[in-house]
Amino acid sequence: MNKESSTQVESRGSSTGSTPNLLVIGSVAFDDIETPFGKSKKTLGGSATYISLAASFFTKAGLVAVVGEDFKSGHCGVLQKRKVDLAGLEMKKGKTFAWGGKYHFDLNTRETLFTHLNVFETFSPVLSPAHRNSQYVFLGNTHPALQAKIINQLRKPKFVGLDTMNYWIEKTPKELGQVLKLVDALVINDSEARELSKERNLLKAARKIAGLMHKNKKRLLIIKRGEYGLLLFQHGKIFHLPGFPLEDVVDPTGAGDTFAGGFMGSLAKADNLSWNNVQKAAVSGSVMASFCVEKFGTKRLQEVSPKEISARHKDFKTLTHFDL
Amino acid sequence: MNKESSTQVESRGSSTGSTPNLLVIGSVAFDDIETPFGKSKKTLGGSATYISLAASFFTKAGLVAVVGEDFKSGHCGVLQKRKVDLAGLEMKKGKTFAWGGKYHFDLNTRETLFTHLNVFETFSPVLSPAHRNSQYVFLGNTHPALQAKIINQLRKPKFVGLDTMNYWIEKTPKELGQVLKLVDALVINDSEARELSKERNLLKAARKIAGLMHKNKKRLLIIKRGEYGLLLFQHGKIFHLPGFPLEDVVDPTGAGDTFAGGFMGSLAKADNLSWNNVQKAAVSGSVMASFCVEKFGTKRLQEVSPKEISARHKDFKTLTHFDL
Repeated sequence: MNKESSTQVESRGSSTGSTPNLLVIGSVAFDDIETPFGKSKKTLGGSATYISLAASFFTKAGLVAVVGEDFKSGHCGVLQKRKVDLAGLEMKKGKTFAWGGKYHFDLNTRETLFTHLNVFETFSPVLSPAHRNSQYVFLGNTHPALQAKIINQLRKPKFVGLDTMNYWIEKTPKELGQVLKLVDALVINDSEARELSKERNLLKAARKIAGLMHKNKKRLLIIKRGEYGLLLFQHGKIFHLPGFPLEDVVDPTGAGDTFAGGFMGSLAKADNLSWNNVQKAAVSGSVMASFCVEKFGTKRLQEVSPKEISARHKDFKTLTHFDL
Repeated sequence: MNKESSTQVESRGSSTGSTPNLLVIGSVAFDDIETPFGKSKKTLGGSATYISLAASFFTKAGLVAVVGEDFKSGHCGVLQKRKVDLAGLEMKKGKTFAWGGKYHFDLNTRETLFTHLNVFETFSPVLSPAHRNSQYVFLGNTHPALQAKIINQLRKPKFVGLDTMNYWIEKTPKELGQVLKLVDALVINDSEARELSKERNLLKAARKIAGLMHKNKKRLLIIKRGEYGLLLFQHGKIFHLPGFPLEDVVDPTGAGDTFAGGFMGSLAKADNLSWNNVQKAAVSGSVMASFCVEKFGTKRLQEVSPKEISARHKDFKTLTHFDL
């Protein structure tokens, strides 16, 4: 982590080091979370945190994000323990992005209590030479123009994935349209897919959204359906995976980002975009997301073992496979 | 069909014939259906109609139901063409059960416009000797005390399945509890499962509901989740199947009953309750339900070919299977 930087350009330009297998650009945040099962204050969160932690079980992940002076070495330790490359984590004057949310009884709906962008408000990273060489890249949810600006710094990426949200679909449709042409995978939820395509039916929505992305046979669209799982689309092929049935979902925060991390980490590890690898990556993403929600914040991701991860991959197979 | 009968007891007592592989007891109705895609008036419907039509693609199904004098030979023809045994279809003075419903834009919610029970109001069948010998039996949604009364007429059934609805969960919990002890399979939707168990989480709900049914290792619970598919539970095992992704859902009426018909028909055909057969039966049910919703009423079930049914079983496999 570059604690000395006063401006982003200098900090990024000066960072050196190795190229991670998966580069993750997004937010690092402190979350105040309230669910029917308890409260958690100033918990380490943010899209880049969840994505890189989940990916770290499959591949070497590097993170590009910004934090404030309230970010402590203990927080870094969570990421370092999972060997996440923090060369791209910049500390700026001010406070770390802070978010507060409250989940209601069914955990499917949440209310944002506050959003303090703080240092994230002016986030506009200049990638280091090492990071520009990244082949697998995922951009967490942020302004689509910023996402495009980051993608354009990459030298020759193999596979770029993107998250977005309803806000950008409504407020910056032009910029979102432009960044969609630059990416190989879009990971969104069903309501976002419907809003983006103006189609209620998800197959029609998927077809329309594919038309908004650049022409590429490896192009992927993943539509997340919360506890109901996901649909994965690639060039006329469809794959469905349910959410893993859990008795106790404690905190859904970060589940979508954790999915993206497991998915991208698994793909970067395979470094081969066959349909089978893509399906397997979706399973890995779902496995990681299913662990994420078992405890508050990133707690479960910090302690889950490779053995547990491997066992849950098999549980997904048992849950979904049948003989005819 | 016994057109002469003036009372049910006589009509049932006098019916003879062979024992169908699957006996279906439920309603035959005329439905007025309105969806965003059109209207359909006085369409042949009712639980027993959908269940027996769907089952007829897998096994010899027989129907026990009541209709009024407005029921014409053309309506019988629809069932006869699929070789559904109509020995248990009684005609009574009065009108056939009539139901009107309107679906809204997303097809997940519907409004009941009218319910005229007519001759179904006093439905209380006395099974013929042949029908009492049935081994596979499914009871469509009706008063749980009536369902129990029918089950108690069976000599030595191998497998009895049951549908119910929120109304009975609320109004007749005691009678519902009694009939649950008599059945091997309960097919309900997620909101019903939550209401019956008083548990939001479906795994906990399933465990509680299993506790309400009689002790039997073959005991099955199927929780339907509309377009999201289903969860199948048996003695600690869980199987998930998504709803089949369709571009055009025209009319969801009867989809749940059609699922039950395909499921029970497939099980009756296999006549073996292995986990693999049970999973396969759930796929068959989902296949039939996916066809059902493609056209208004029973139209698609009348015309679907065994080849299409077989192909969609394979499509379900392609949709859900992956290699690790």
